[in-house]
Amino acid sequence: MTIRIGIAGISGRMGRLLAEEVAAAGALLAGGTTRSGAAPAGAAVLPDFAALCAAADVVIDFTHAHAAAAHAQAAAAAGTAFILGSSGLSAADEAAVSAAAGRIPIVYAANFAPGVNLFLAIAERMAAALPGAQYDAEIVEMHHRQKVDAPSGTAVALGRAVAAGRGTTLEEAGRESGRDGHCGPRGTGTIGFAALRGGQVVGDHTLVFAAASEQISLTHQSFDRRVYATGAVRAALWVRGRAPGLYGMRDVLGM
Amino acid sequence: MTIRIGIAGISGRMGRLLAEEVAAAGALLAGGTTRSGAAPAGAAVLPDFAALCAAADVVIDFTHAHAAAAHAQAAAAAGTAFILGSSGLSAADEAAVSAAAGRIPIVYAANFAPGVNLFLAIAERMAAALPGAQYDAEIVEMHHRQKVDAPSGTAVALGRAVAAGRGTTLEEAGRESGRDGHCGPRGTGTIGFAALRGGQVVGDHTLVFAAASEQISLTHQSFDRRVYATGAVRAALWVRGRAPGLYGMRDVLGM
Amino acid sequence: MTIRIGIAGISGRMGRLLAEEVAAAGALLAGGTTRSGAAPAGAAVLPDFAALCAAADVVIDFTHAHAAAAHAQAAAAAGTAFILGSSGLSAADEAAVSAAAGRIPIVYAANFAPGVNLFLAIAERMAAALPGAQYDAEIVEMHHRQKVDAPSGTAVALGRAVAAGRGTTLEEAGRESGRDGHCGPRGTGTIGFAALRGGQVVGDHTLVFAAASEQISLTHQSFDRRVYATGAVRAALWVRGRAPGLYGMRDVLGM
Amino acid sequence: MTIRIGIAGISGRMGRLLAEEVAAAGALLAGGTTRSGAAPAGAAVLPDFAALCAAADVVIDFTHAHAAAAHAQAAAAAGTAFILGSSGLSAADEAAVSAAAGRIPIVYAANFAPGVNLFLAIAERMAAALPGAQYDAEIVEMHHRQKVDAPSGTAVALGRAVAAGRGTTLEEAGRESGRDGHCGPRGTGTIGFAALRGGQVVGDHTLVFAAASEQISLTHQSFDRRVYATGAVRAALWVRGRAPGLYGMRDVLGM
Repeated sequence: MTIRIGIAGISGRMGRLLAEEVAAAGALLAGGTTRSGAAPAGAAVLPDFAALCAAADVVIDFTHAHAAAAHAQAAAAAGTAFILGSSGLSAADEAAVSAAAGRIPIVYAANFAPGVNLFLAIAERMAAALPGAQYDAEIVEMHHRQKVDAPSGTAVALGRAVAAGRGTTLEEAGRESGRDGHCGPRGTGTIGFAALRGGQVVGDHTLVFAAASEQISLTHQSFDRRVYATGAVRAALWVRGRAPGLYGMRDVLGM
Repeated sequence: MTIRIGIAGISGRMGRLLAEEVAAAGALLAGGTTRSGAAPAGAAVLPDFAALCAAADVVIDFTHAHAAAAHAQAAAAAGTAFILGSSGLSAADEAAVSAAAGRIPIVYAANFAPGVNLFLAIAERMAAALPGAQYDAEIVEMHHRQKVDAPSGTAVALGRAVAAGRGTTLEEAGRESGRDGHCGPRGTGTIGFAALRGGQVVGDHTLVFAAASEQISLTHQSFDRRVYATGAVRAALWVRGRAPGLYGMRDVLGM
Repeated sequence: MTIRIGIAGISGRMGRLLAEEVAAAGALLAGGTTRSGAAPAGAAVLPDFAALCAAADVVIDFTHAHAAAAHAQAAAAAGTAFILGSSGLSAADEAAVSAAAGRIPIVYAANFAPGVNLFLAIAERMAAALPGAQYDAEIVEMHHRQKVDAPSGTAVALGRAVAAGRGTTLEEAGRESGRDGHCGPRGTGTIGFAALRGGQVVGDHTLVFAAASEQISLTHQSFDRRVYATGAVRAALWVRGRAPGLYGMRDVLGM
Repeated sequence: MTIRIGIAGISGRMGRLLAEEVAAAGALLAGGTTRSGAAPAGAAVLPDFAALCAAADVVIDFTHAHAAAAHAQAAAAAGTAFILGSSGLSAADEAAVSAAAGRIPIVYAANFAPGVNLFLAIAERMAAALPGAQYDAEIVEMHHRQKVDAPSGTAVALGRAVAAGRGTTLEEAGRESGRDGHCGPRGTGTIGFAALRGGQVVGDHTLVFAAASEQISLTHQSFDRRVYATGAVRAALWVRGRAPGLYGMRDVLGM
C-alpha cells in the first residue's frame, strides 16, 4: 500500500521542498500543519499535529527544536513513525525523543543529506585504516560569504569521525584550525581545519589524508538545500514497518 | 623479537625501495636474492630463494609472475610467510599460490598502496549506499604521457567495485568509456570512464557520485612508486604469526 | 542618467532572469516584448521590437537566431545599442549583424558568463607561455546526464584557444578525445579531451597543463544559468556611449 | 653556437639538478664551483667564481644571498650573463645586483617555476576582470608537514597580485587569514587565505574567485624542486644576447 507521509510546517521553505520530494518519490502526501502562510496547492491542511499523525503513516518534522519533544510524544501516542530533522535539541528534549522511540520507530539526524552521512561513516573507516603517524588528516570547507563562524559544524563532525576511527577524540588528538603566522611544524596525529568563504556556496567539505607517497581525499558538495528533503523522504520510506527504536541516517543508508 | 624480512630481487628498482622501507620500519633486513646487479650497501646476498626463506620470517617478492608459484612453494616448504606483489599470474600460478597458502600465511595483492585498497573498499560501500538511479558514478584517471591504454587497471577495478556494491557487474551495469561525438544521454546506472594523459603523473584516480542536489567524490594520488614498497612492508609486519591462509591488502588494512 | 534597458522575450526563462539582473544592477527596466506568456510583474510590455528600441538605451536579445538580423537592423535604425546572446546564427545573419554594427555598438558573444570568457582569454595566454613539448594540455568537462554530445562547445573553444596560443589550430595540433582501449602514448603537442556526465551539473570545465615537475590547471564552474544574464547586463552597462562596432565579451571584460 | 652554462655550487642538491637540466636542454655544461663535496661526474670544477664566468656564456647561481652581490659584480666584470635564484637578499645586495645589471643582462626571481610565474601574472589579470564586489578571492595552499609558517610566501605573492589587479594593495584590501571561531561575515573585497599541511607536498596553491553563479579557480602544483632548475635553465637560454638589464621570469616567459 502506498505510504502516506505528513509534513509538519508544510508552508515553510523546507516544508514545500518536502512536499515536492514526497510527490517525486511516488508517495502519498497526507497533508501538513501550518502556523501561517498557505500550504502548497493540493495539500490538505490538518488542524494540529495529532490530526496529522492520525492521517499519516510517517510524519516528517523540520520545524523547531522546542516542538520536538511534544511532536515525538504525539507521534508515539498515535503509533505513527517519526522523522525528526530539527537541530539544537536540549538534553531533556533528546531524552523525550528517546523515550518516544520505545513505542515507535524514529529517525533523528542532524543532517539528512545522504552523502554527508556517508561521508561521516567513511571518514571514520578511512581514519581507522590510515594511521596518523603516516597520514595527516586535513579538513577544508567552503561556504557562502555570509557564514559567520568557522569551521562548519559538519567539518567538526568530520574531525570527530576521524578521531573516533583512530580510537581517540578530537580534543585528545588536537585540532590545528586556521593556521596563520608562525605555527611550527604540524603535530603528528593532529587534525587540521581550514575554512574558505565565498559566493553562495551551500556547503563543500573535503577531507584529505596526506602521506609521503600517496594522498587520498574525499569531497562532498551540497548544491541546494533540497538534498535534506530528499534524505528525509528516503528515511520515511525506509522507516515504515521498522521496530520501535531510535535510528540515524546511517541506519537508513545501510552503513 | 625484531622481524626479519627477506627481499627477492633486491638489486632492482623495487627491491631497493623495499630495502629502504624495511629499514624505515625498524625491521631487520635478512638479505635478498639478485639475478644481476649489486645489492644495496649492507644487504646480505643469499644464493637462492630457499636460502632467503631460511634466513627470514617473511619474504617479499615483486619479481616476476612466472616465479610466483615456485617461490610460494619454497616459502611453504620453509614455513616462511610470503608477500606476493607480482601481477599477471596465470590461473595455474594462482592455484599454486592458493595451495601454498594452506601451509603458510600469504598476502597477495595487485596493488599494495594502502590508499588504493582503501579506495576500492570504500567505492563498493559508497555504491551500496548511493543508488544508481539518483547517483551517476563516473571514474576519471590521469597517468603519465607514455601510458598506452585506457582506462587504467585500477580505474576498471574501481568500476567493478561500484558495480559489486550495487549488486551487479560492470558488464551488466554497462560502461560508458571515452565519450566522444554524439553519445546520447547518460544511461541510468551505467559507470562512466574518462582518461587524462600528461606529464609524469604516477597515477591519479577520482570516483564521482553525482546527483541533482549533491556530489561526493573520492580521489587517490600516488606520488611515487615507493608507496607500493611501504604497503608491502606493512603487510610483512602484519602477517607474522597469522594462521595459514591467503590474505589481501584489505585484511592487512582491517577493512 | 540611469541607463534604460529593454529585453526581447521578457516572459521566457532567460527574459525573467535578465529582468531580475537589470533590477539588481540598479538600472531602469524599459520593458520587454513577449510572444506569449505574461511579463514579470511591473514590466511594461512593448508592442514590437522597434517600440522596445525606442524606449531603451540598450536592448538585450537572447531569443532566437532567426530574429537576430532583423533585430540588429531595427536597433541600428533606432540608434539603440544592442546585446546579442542568441547562438547558431548563419553566416548571412552574422553578416547582417556586422553591418548593423557600423551604426551602433553591438556586443555579440556565444557565452556571456564573465568567467568563461576570462577562461578562454587566459587559456590562450597560458598556452603561449607553456610549450607543448613540455606541457601536455588536457581539457575535462562535466555536464548533466541529459547532455547528448561530447566534448562540450566550450571545451572545444578552450582547445582552440590553447592551439591559438601556440600559434597553430586545433586541427593541426591534433585532438585526442575520449581515450578508450589501446590508444598508444600521448602525442606531443596534441590537446586531450575527456567528458564526464552526471547529475544536473550546469557546466564544469578544467584545463590542465601537465609537465614532469609541475602542473597548472584552471577550472570554471557555472552554478546556474543566471550567470549568462549577469554577463549580458554587465555588457549593457559597458556598451552605452561606445563607438559603433562589433564587440565581444573580452572587450567588456577589458581583456 | 651551443650556449655554455656555468653553475655556482654544482655539488649541492640544487647544483646537481641544474647540471642535469643543462644536459637535458642540450646546452654545454661549462663547469661549476664547489665549496665542498664532489661535482657530478664529468663536470669541470673551476677554482673560483671569476674563472667560472670566464668559461661560460651564462652563470646560474642558487647558492646564498650573501654571495649574490659579489657574484653579480664578477659576472659584470667578465661580461657574462647572470641568472640569480638566491632569496632573502638585503636591500643593499639588491642595489648591487641592479647596478651590475647596467652592464650585463641578469634574470633575478624569487621563484623560477614557470607555472608559478604564469600563475602570478594570470592572477593579476583575473582580478582585474572579476570585481571584488561580486567575486570573492580566496587562496588556499598546501605544503609538507614540516613547514612552520602560514600562509606561504607564494600565497602572499598571489594575494598581492590579486590586489594589484584590482588597483589596490593587500593591506588596503584586507586579508582574512586562518579563519577560526566567530569571524563574522566575509568582508567585501578582502582576500582570504587558508593553509593545509600534510605529507611531503612540495607546494600546491589554489586561487578561487567565487561568485553567486560561477566560480573560477587556478591551481598550481610543484611535484619536485627540479622545476626550479628547469626554469633557471630556460632563463639561461633566453638571456643570451639580451641587452643589459634586470629581467624577471615574466620577461623570460613573454608575459
